[in-house]
Amino acid sequence: MERIDQIESIFDKREAPTTPVVSPAVIKRLPRYHRYLGELLRMGRLRISSAELSRMMNVTASQIRQDLNCFGGFGQQGYGYNVKYLHSKISELLGTTEGFRCVIVGAGNLGRALAATHMFERRGVERVAMFDNDPRVVGTQIHGLPVYHVNSLAGFCREMKIALAVLTVPKEAAPEVVDMLIEGGVRGIWNFANMELDVECEGVVVENIHLGDSLMKLTYEMKTRTGESK
Amino acid sequence: MERIDQIESIFDKREAPTTPVVSPAVIKRLPRYHRYLGELLRMGRLRISSAELSRMMNVTASQIRQDLNCFGGFGQQGYGYNVKYLHSKISELLGTTEGFRCVIVGAGNLGRALAATHMFERRGVERVAMFDNDPRVVGTQIHGLPVYHVNSLAGFCREMKIALAVLTVPKEAAPEVVDMLIEGGVRGIWNFANMELDVECEGVVVENIHLGDSLMKLTYEMKTRTGESK
Repeated sequence: MERIDQIESIFDKREAPTTPVVSPAVIKRLPRYHRYLGELLRMGRLRISSAELSRMMNVTASQIRQDLNCFGGFGQQGYGYNVKYLHSKISELLGTTEGFRCVIVGAGNLGRALAATHMFERRGVERVAMFDNDPRVVGTQIHGLPVYHVNSLAGFCREMKIALAVLTVPKEAAPEVVDMLIEGGVRGIWNFANMELDVECEGVVVENIHLGDSLMKLTYEMKTRTGESK
Repeated sequence: MERIDQIESIFDKREAPTTPVVSPAVIKRLPRYHRYLGELLRMGRLRISSAELSRMMNVTASQIRQDLNCFGGFGQQGYGYNVKYLHSKISELLGTTEGFRCVIVGAGNLGRALAATHMFERRGVERVAMFDNDPRVVGTQIHGLPVYHVNSLAGFCREMKIALAVLTVPKEAAPEVVDMLIEGGVRGIWNFANMELDVECEGVVVENIHLGDSLMKLTYEMKTRTGESK
């Protein structure tokens, strides 16, 4: 038995993904690298030095080398980074090649705004449908997405293998919708409902967006800056 | 002359605001405290202990005491915090009592969604108007806000003493609009244009919103979590 265990453990190692181990601090910074590298790609740039990337991104070159060198030795001295390779490696690491399917729950102003962007497809997320409880929008299409009644949410998610849900419903409706999403087997919730969800224990990942917090950060900075200049 | 300088410096000290000195790390966490304390207020709660706030916010009680005790001795052992006092102190510190006036530039889906929220007024920011270059919307009202042509932006900002601008125009249009805002004397930009603005040198504070980065953080977590559960 011990030998079989050993063999299995060798297999485990062979089957392990080749994505590098990256610290949480670096992960947090990767979407920004991804954005800049995407811009460079669209501009037709093939290579970029850490010094130039440093100037563009307003980060020290040594920070860039620390952050990106864990992806392998493609940032060699004097050659710079291969933009396409680095962009695709970061894409893969961040989950954009997983083919996650997504629904938007809530067809109000914010839901409509999100339905209109190209943000999802650019990150490998496929939007499939929207859900609402307002009879005036159920049965219509918004920016090409069909709008269904929220009563059918759980069944739809299960049947269509929806991995990700965008939550733009009013705060009061959020808990009930979250129960439906969990029942539907959704694995990630992008939460704009202005309340913090704590469902990680159910195996669901939540990313809370609090625009109001960001607005207050701005007014604080404005207030402080004015104080200085007086 | 020296004595006059001394007297002036005494005046400076007397006129200094009584707001406490708070570290940047604490400032970053304050909007979240503000949000929870606001909820408690609406529920009619007058006092709360650090232990209960800790459970609500999923932060250690010692962290809460460290963060909030700099506001003064109103978190005494056994009495808990005075919710209203703490909420108003944090409001004031974050700039919500400054009466900043604001315009939304860009009357697309996101601009409309932001025009529909109560987020601004709740944080003491007064929305005054929207701006766009589309003749189909210029001259109309969106959620009660008049829409003017972007050509009149700089003059309007100067005349109406606009302090804050929300930028929801396409990325390509952003630099030109930012020039108009600086000309108009705007002091803060809440930037949804999906490009990073670097105008802080002009004395303008910028808060960049990158929803796409947040989406990628979510897909990364989903990918990682799934890997673990396999």
